[in-house]
Amino acid sequence: MNVLVLGAAGMVGRKFIEQVVKDDGRIGDGAVTHMTLFDVVEPKAPAGSPFQVTALAGDLGEPGIAQTLIADRPELIVHLAAIVSGEAEADFEKGYRVNLDSTRELFEAIRQAGGGYKPRLVFTSSIAVFGQPFPKDGITDDYNLTPLTSYGTQKAIGELLLADYSRRGFLDGVGIRLPTICVRPGKPNAAASGFFSGIIREPLNGQEAILPVSESVRHWHASPRAAVGFLLHAATMDTAPLGQRRSLTMPGLSVTVGEQIEALRRVAGDKVAARIVHRPDPVIQAIVGGWAEKCRPERAETFGFKAEKTFEEIIRVYIDDELGGRIPG
Amino acid sequence: MNVLVLGAAGMVGRKFIEQVVKDDGRIGDGAVTHMTLFDVVEPKAPAGSPFQVTALAGDLGEPGIAQTLIADRPELIVHLAAIVSGEAEADFEKGYRVNLDSTRELFEAIRQAGGGYKPRLVFTSSIAVFGQPFPKDGITDDYNLTPLTSYGTQKAIGELLLADYSRRGFLDGVGIRLPTICVRPGKPNAAASGFFSGIIREPLNGQEAILPVSESVRHWHASPRAAVGFLLHAATMDTAPLGQRRSLTMPGLSVTVGEQIEALRRVAGDKVAARIVHRPDPVIQAIVGGWAEKCRPERAETFGFKAEKTFEEIIRVYIDDELGGRIPG
Repeated sequence: MNVLVLGAAGMVGRKFIEQVVKDDGRIGDGAVTHMTLFDVVEPKAPAGSPFQVTALAGDLGEPGIAQTLIADRPELIVHLAAIVSGEAEADFEKGYRVNLDSTRELFEAIRQAGGGYKPRLVFTSSIAVFGQPFPKDGITDDYNLTPLTSYGTQKAIGELLLADYSRRGFLDGVGIRLPTICVRPGKPNAAASGFFSGIIREPLNGQEAILPVSESVRHWHASPRAAVGFLLHAATMDTAPLGQRRSLTMPGLSVTVGEQIEALRRVAGDKVAARIVHRPDPVIQAIVGGWAEKCRPERAETFGFKAEKTFEEIIRVYIDDELGGRIPG
Repeated sequence: MNVLVLGAAGMVGRKFIEQVVKDDGRIGDGAVTHMTLFDVVEPKAPAGSPFQVTALAGDLGEPGIAQTLIADRPELIVHLAAIVSGEAEADFEKGYRVNLDSTRELFEAIRQAGGGYKPRLVFTSSIAVFGQPFPKDGITDDYNLTPLTSYGTQKAIGELLLADYSRRGFLDGVGIRLPTICVRPGKPNAAASGFFSGIIREPLNGQEAILPVSESVRHWHASPRAAVGFLLHAATMDTAPLGQRRSLTMPGLSVTVGEQIEALRRVAGDKVAARIVHRPDPVIQAIVGGWAEKCRPERAETFGFKAEKTFEEIIRVYIDDELGGRIPG
């Protein structure tokens, strides 16, 4: 199987590639023979890969790039490339260019390739396609997409294009609306959502973490490991039962910040949990207030997508995958 | 008030312009001083207009056209320009170019105009943004958009762009999802939906009409006069209560074809109704089977949009507006 990963240098992209290597180059029943990794910076080829790897840097929106990337007809395309919410909000033109136009360039290159070419295309969308007000009992699978950011708008448009290009037979699309990924590894960042990971990651690493919102804030989470599982399942699932509704809200866990902290306390003790410092930030509180709190991803669960059931599990995934299984001194 | 009408040569566009002339050039509390009519063919200027009219032909998608059209900063833009469902399905590229790219060109021209320019923009969407399966009790205002045609996809994307450009403060958008317009005046056409009007119009004009579907087919209708009312209301309403959800399903009437025929019989008698010939067409039956049957347009009704309450009213609108108030011999 020939695979193309767009946005391969990002956190989820890297973990996806590592997992395929760990699985001896298998995705479902297929053996990967060649994987092309593409991003704006050249992605690092994974160590010990049983398949051939080509790593390329470039801009998907530039003329001819999408055509070049699909020239060897990858059977599977995993499209993770995007600029994040904050950047798409700060730079309107860049957001539309990267998150909408590049996606359309890719879909058009596939359509125009002809010769019966019809790859499986896994498109990563986001719960940012949803915006307040929400139903009390959670966002159902048939709730409308009312994004409150340009990023969410661009993802919602991507979902519509994916469905239309699939319906017309140009590609075989699956759109997966990712929850907020938690615990993100790495350094603290300035994203409004950064604290959801920071209040777990920094205390586990012996550092103080700022909590800018109240403990009653509720949000929808899944681990990086779950996100990789979503991609692998979307890459291989039978798409016939999806009908024309090609995008699915992924399973996740609805917890409050207070519940996150209690889970941390249970996993790592009072001393670690005490490293969280409450420092309310009205700006962040306002942004986060418009976000999805709880989804009811019944279709995705029916189709076999799985995520963590408790926040302790999410914390243990971080400790296992990023800290070698133990909490540092 | 300076007004720009895009798609001014179409049936709804012409009727909108005629109504403004009849209303002595007033739209709500505003007096129209100048109206620019634009379409792919040069629109006919209305007779006896109390305001200045400029009629232009061109392609909105061509570079510079949108900029030229908004150069004199129209306060109201009524955007009706589109190719219809059947054509967008038959010609994929043309559909995206006309229905999506041209709309985006227009929005971008407005955004880039600067200087605090922020027109009211009335965008005509369609119930084609909805696709089966539907809720049993009708399509609610928070039901998701799952178009089953490229046309519906392009309209749904237009709605998302309208909301984002409005949220960012570039324009003041109102999207109106039109029901199927019935009774359309003029000659029979080949559109799959054509028979909904044809089975009323042709018999009233002494001609036979083909009914290609069963009498149990249910659909969502409003008259051309109601559509003009929607545009006028959308042009002047207070948009603050809309929040970020800028597009509204317009009111209409859910009736079966059998109920349409009964209404025709009540209005025009057995002899006229007998001119309908049942000739089932499985292709048309299949297309129409995916369409919206019933909506629950509660938000639009709350905000003051109004349509007919019975199909007899819809027939009488046609007789009044197109046949001079009487049924021909």
